[in-house]
Amino acid sequence: MPKVRLAMAQTNPIVGDISGNLAQTIAAIDSAAALGANLVVFGEMNLTGYPIEDLAARESFITAAELAVADLAKHLQDGKYADLAVVIGHPSRAELKKGWSIAHNSATAIIGGQITGRYAKHHLPNYSVFDEYRNFVPGNSTFSFEFQGMRFSVLICEDIWQDGGPVAELSALDTDVTLVLNGSPFEVSKDDVRLKLVVDLAKAQGTAVAYVNLVGGQDDLVFDGNSIFVDSTGGLIARADQFATDLTIVEILDKATAISQATSPLAQAPDLEQVWNALVLGLRDYVAKNGFKSVVLGLSGGIDSAVCAAIAADAIGAENVFGVSMPSIYSSDHSRSDAEDLAHRIGCHYRTEAIGKLVDAFETQMDLGGLASENLQARMRGVILMALSNAEGHLTLTTGNKTELAVGYSTIYGDSVGGFAPIKDVEKTMVWKLANWRNDLATAKRETPPIPENSISKPPSAELRPDQVDQDSLPEYEVLDALLDAYVERRLGRVQIIAEGFDAQMVDRIIGLVDRAEWKRRQGAIGPKITGMAFGRDRRLPITNKFR
Amino acid sequence: MPKVRLAMAQTNPIVGDISGNLAQTIAAIDSAAALGANLVVFGEMNLTGYPIEDLAARESFITAAELAVADLAKHLQDGKYADLAVVIGHPSRAELKKGWSIAHNSATAIIGGQITGRYAKHHLPNYSVFDEYRNFVPGNSTFSFEFQGMRFSVLICEDIWQDGGPVAELSALDTDVTLVLNGSPFEVSKDDVRLKLVVDLAKAQGTAVAYVNLVGGQDDLVFDGNSIFVDSTGGLIARADQFATDLTIVEILDKATAISQATSPLAQAPDLEQVWNALVLGLRDYVAKNGFKSVVLGLSGGIDSAVCAAIAADAIGAENVFGVSMPSIYSSDHSRSDAEDLAHRIGCHYRTEAIGKLVDAFETQMDLGGLASENLQARMRGVILMALSNAEGHLTLTTGNKTELAVGYSTIYGDSVGGFAPIKDVEKTMVWKLANWRNDLATAKRETPPIPENSISKPPSAELRPDQVDQDSLPEYEVLDALLDAYVERRLGRVQIIAEGFDAQMVDRIIGLVDRAEWKRRQGAIGPKITGMAFGRDRRLPITNKFR
Repeated sequence: MPKVRLAMAQTNPIVGDISGNLAQTIAAIDSAAALGANLVVFGEMNLTGYPIEDLAARESFITAAELAVADLAKHLQDGKYADLAVVIGHPSRAELKKGWSIAHNSATAIIGGQITGRYAKHHLPNYSVFDEYRNFVPGNSTFSFEFQGMRFSVLICEDIWQDGGPVAELSALDTDVTLVLNGSPFEVSKDDVRLKLVVDLAKAQGTAVAYVNLVGGQDDLVFDGNSIFVDSTGGLIARADQFATDLTIVEILDKATAISQATSPLAQAPDLEQVWNALVLGLRDYVAKNGFKSVVLGLSGGIDSAVCAAIAADAIGAENVFGVSMPSIYSSDHSRSDAEDLAHRIGCHYRTEAIGKLVDAFETQMDLGGLASENLQARMRGVILMALSNAEGHLTLTTGNKTELAVGYSTIYGDSVGGFAPIKDVEKTMVWKLANWRNDLATAKRETPPIPENSISKPPSAELRPDQVDQDSLPEYEVLDALLDAYVERRLGRVQIIAEGFDAQMVDRIIGLVDRAEWKRRQGAIGPKITGMAFGRDRRLPITNKFR
Repeated sequence: MPKVRLAMAQTNPIVGDISGNLAQTIAAIDSAAALGANLVVFGEMNLTGYPIEDLAARESFITAAELAVADLAKHLQDGKYADLAVVIGHPSRAELKKGWSIAHNSATAIIGGQITGRYAKHHLPNYSVFDEYRNFVPGNSTFSFEFQGMRFSVLICEDIWQDGGPVAELSALDTDVTLVLNGSPFEVSKDDVRLKLVVDLAKAQGTAVAYVNLVGGQDDLVFDGNSIFVDSTGGLIARADQFATDLTIVEILDKATAISQATSPLAQAPDLEQVWNALVLGLRDYVAKNGFKSVVLGLSGGIDSAVCAAIAADAIGAENVFGVSMPSIYSSDHSRSDAEDLAHRIGCHYRTEAIGKLVDAFETQMDLGGLASENLQARMRGVILMALSNAEGHLTLTTGNKTELAVGYSTIYGDSVGGFAPIKDVEKTMVWKLANWRNDLATAKRETPPIPENSISKPPSAELRPDQVDQDSLPEYEVLDALLDAYVERRLGRVQIIAEGFDAQMVDRIIGLVDRAEWKRRQGAIGPKITGMAFGRDRRLPITNKFR
């Protein structure tokens, strides 16, 4: 009777920190062994982090990755690992180069300290945020190995999202269990797609499937973990934690029979909860992995900055969040009181830096007016936040949402300053939903709801001139977000959007705004992708572009 | 006796301006016909502009491009075009999709108003600045047509840079003349590579080659034209203008015998002249294609802003250049006098906006110091420039050079503000060379040299604290640029760079600076690529990255 105790090791590597990732890998192996596991499988590129982008084209990087694999194998030659099999992900040197690509995206099996074999990813995603056809040489063979009387085949991520290639040969290889190493970023509702994909694969090829995903934030991506094990009948046996490192143990009796030792629920959390947790993890890891300890952000009393502050407090602790109210002569009383209320509710640092005298100094010297004056106010605030960042070492957060970013409703070098944009990929209507969801969570836990009710209910305003509200110049947000969904996410053209029932004049105006704001978006901070089409490397358009 | 008079039509399309590009195409055809041409060949994607990036994934865009091809064919059904053949470039709808790609990168032959055939680009570049494997479906067949008793085969750009595919079949197709449509961006010394490639191809396949390139700036790329005609013996028969629209006529008697009607010299201009002209064209087209009429930039008295101002004056006329001196208490007398001298020499607008009172307003309120105070000065200048841009409608230019950008020697939201960075890809040592080259050109033409000698000869300084010079914190620029060439352009690792003779401590410090400045570069303005490795989409690295 075969006895395989599989550990799905959901680690959170840092890109380029090869020694740190190696140590994390060894620690996970030791923890897995202590739990009785004899097969430990990691996510895609767990040794180097993922995605490595053009680091893939550096000889020195590939050499370092190869050395780490050799170091790990050597480490595992210690007798205590004699009966242990490990499958790790890393780049490896390709024998034949393709363009400037010199590496494969690989997985290596190490059994009892011996490198048993290696697989090179066959299907290289080169759409959305992925540039793998740029960075890697595709593999062209299958890889299986025997362990404890069972046959394991190895695949990597995109391999199971495309037809053909190694995924079609699993059955022919007599595979008992397919081990899939993944670097699959979070998107709302994406997880259900993954589960369906894995179940269909298990049934089609008659193999159990261990789908092991990375976890953690890496620049604009959030890997959500949520690894799954499905038996060869398509039954979901185990699901690992989402948005946390995890070791999930599955006892595999045969391909159709496995017993989970996992404590995480098999069902998915609701969408808003997943989005909130993705945003929290994305921010937390950007802060930590880039050596920051704290963040600073402007608190306007509005919903966007309130939600960003609450995310930041959840991510790194309120004691590391520095909120700044920066009122002007146009600021309403509630903008100050709501900002202060938020800070009290969260328990973050709070100070006031009025911009009146700073604006006056410029206006006295330069005699501005109109748009220049409005932007000046936003830029004074940007300078204040960056001065505090420089003086005190905080990461500056910029609090713009996706809707704002789409239509360019922000001041470049003003409210857009910062190294990270927590709600960059969250449309305005979802910002409100997240605020309500987070407050409801607090209520359910008998905690103080972090976001002032007034920040949720009042009409949004940039407060750059008297009595200004967003809807002076923009459609209602429900309409605007629906229109943007058609133009940005679904890539529809003018005629198609109008055919969906939107007012033609509004369509022309809004898509013109979106296109003309491209130069600003290009200079914007990164932030966590949570949708199927985020601004940034997910959507690459020319700045110089007259197509409407 | 066959009689083909070929016109190589080097047009300057605007991405997305399909109706404008179509009108430009028809105008070029009419001009060519007036010069007696009966075959007119354009550059890659001349109908839509190039590169179109993710516009390729929009159904509405591909539909519009297809309609433009049909419109052109219909227009050419007029009797006066009866004996005329035209080959144009455009995206076309692919029958089979690949990922989210729905289009081919195509060329269509129209003879006497009838669409005779179509070619789809076979090799899709997906390295450097190119994402064509992302955006297009590769073609998989050859396309030849008969005209005036000769056989023409059509290829597109990358097809002749890779082995195999249609380029290997030219001889078997009995090709007399290969027509290659190109969108090949300028790089220093790249042209010699193109000529060698075309000559080798002509000899290997025994075919004459008409290599037709686009011209014009498109965001960060500058297409330099410089189209060439090589006969089947490998002889260079004609070369079109570089950096200008052009119609070059070649009378083709047979594949080995052709007579040029071109007036441009067969030899290449010297490198510095080419670089200057590339920078001028890149800026001119960004300004014009994005609807600007004028530019504003800070004039510090230093070499970088002086060179940018001179480029701007050459590009759009000094009367459209607005220079601003923004002295602080740390500014030397010469920073003001050199800036003023420059403005007088060039004849551009000039004004002074001292930043003292603005800085004082902040310092009084916030009690800064150290780096925060230094950055504050740069940010006051950024706010002034953007205020002038908002108030008067100028495009703001940021004057940082490639060396500065590499090591992060600039203030984000300060001197980095602007929509376009004319010398972004010019390393500091080349900035000085360009200044001398441009002054020498003026002297040779008996004009006033634009750049003050003092701006060239004085030690560079950011003047953010008393007596500061760049070399307080950076190696000599000759050493620094050589080190950066190794790290950035040649992608060498630490060990390899030290092995080339650089001081180990310096290497560690500089590559650390380069890596840590990635977040700033990501938010920087675009500027014309002139080297083999520009910052921007040519070099894609994670911000979160611990590999040194």
